[in-house]
Amino acid sequence: MPTDHAQAEESTRDRILRVAAQMFAEKGFHGTGVAELGDAAGIKRGALYYHIGSKEDLLYDLSKRHVEEALERGRTVVESDLRPIEKLRALVREHLTALVARRSEVTVVMREMHALTGDRAERLKQLRDAHQDLFRQVLEEGVEEGVFRSFDSVTVLAILGMLNWTYVWFDPEHGSLPIEKIADRLSDIFIYGELQTSSKQQPERGTEHPTGA
Amino acid sequence: MPTDHAQAEESTRDRILRVAAQMFAEKGFHGTGVAELGDAAGIKRGALYYHIGSKEDLLYDLSKRHVEEALERGRTVVESDLRPIEKLRALVREHLTALVARRSEVTVVMREMHALTGDRAERLKQLRDAHQDLFRQVLEEGVEEGVFRSFDSVTVLAILGMLNWTYVWFDPEHGSLPIEKIADRLSDIFIYGELQTSSKQQPERGTEHPTGA
Repeated sequence: MPTDHAQAEESTRDRILRVAAQMFAEKGFHGTGVAELGDAAGIKRGALYYHIGSKEDLLYDLSKRHVEEALERGRTVVESDLRPIEKLRALVREHLTALVARRSEVTVVMREMHALTGDRAERLKQLRDAHQDLFRQVLEEGVEEGVFRSFDSVTVLAILGMLNWTYVWFDPEHGSLPIEKIADRLSDIFIYGELQTSSKQQPERGTEHPTGA
Repeated sequence: MPTDHAQAEESTRDRILRVAAQMFAEKGFHGTGVAELGDAAGIKRGALYYHIGSKEDLLYDLSKRHVEEALERGRTVVESDLRPIEKLRALVREHLTALVARRSEVTVVMREMHALTGDRAERLKQLRDAHQDLFRQVLEEGVEEGVFRSFDSVTVLAILGMLNWTYVWFDPEHGSLPIEKIADRLSDIFIYGELQTSSKQQPERGTEHPTGA
């Protein structure tokens, strides 16, 4: 029956992706062989290429799955009726939630996605650009409403850096705060900065270097 | 003569590290064999282990060299007489300058340092903690002087994320701003935040979630 067959296929594919993520994490993308990947996933030699195709397909599928999920979560936020500050906070929460939802997979994606080449690299770049653009849109709405300062691509890459770097340090088993608290802290830093605003000892932004840097 | 011999040794080691960084970048740490590394560096088979030791030693040396350089640059800033805001700006500049000074090596270090194990992993962690602590010290000085808000480890990891993530996107050959400008932009974001402070439409930090998030 086609439906059962499709389900069985899907579950084989999911198993392969899970095993691939584990092996890429342990031995790196380049250090993992297709044949040993097949062995670990229980795929018979004759069916290896049918099920696994190229290793790069697997890395692409893992990467795409993560970015598409983050993109879908983010689009819902951007299309909502929230005001810009709340939209930014929600976007941060959704992005971090997507990062931790498949934490070990995302770690592999972050470390290894540079290994994608050609058309796969290009398609993933388009997805990541679309995701990055969500942050740009929310900042732009905020500037139009007069709540955010003007911004540029460095601003967008700054917040994505704060968020994406959590893959290196976020570790709920070793005392990290819950991800929602981290999302709120990072949003606060990005929105309000670290300057103690009651302080009268420091000049306004940008004026302490009147001649430029 | 011992001096010439020491110089010759050092230059062989530097050559090996350069070749190792290139090969780790292309084929990953786990995908690179010691023998092919020796071939690429022009080391004869009999001298292979004498000169190269383990692959992990090379990854450790690359990582250590980078973190020690960043640490040394940062310590000079922290020990200076600058005020906390200027100290933070200088620390950001020095960190980004260290990141771009050996850009291709640092890219490998960022992607592959998780592959270090045991004592080497522990020693690198201590170096990275010492570097992270420089940011903590400067924030603390700022809090004591009343110019920075209170902070926690998430604050420190936020700025390190903004800075370290540049390894993914900073690309002077494809239109990135000069690294000094990027340093100033990232410092501004971290110090002042993105809120348009002349705006009267938004509540103060933290008050828009009176019940917590």
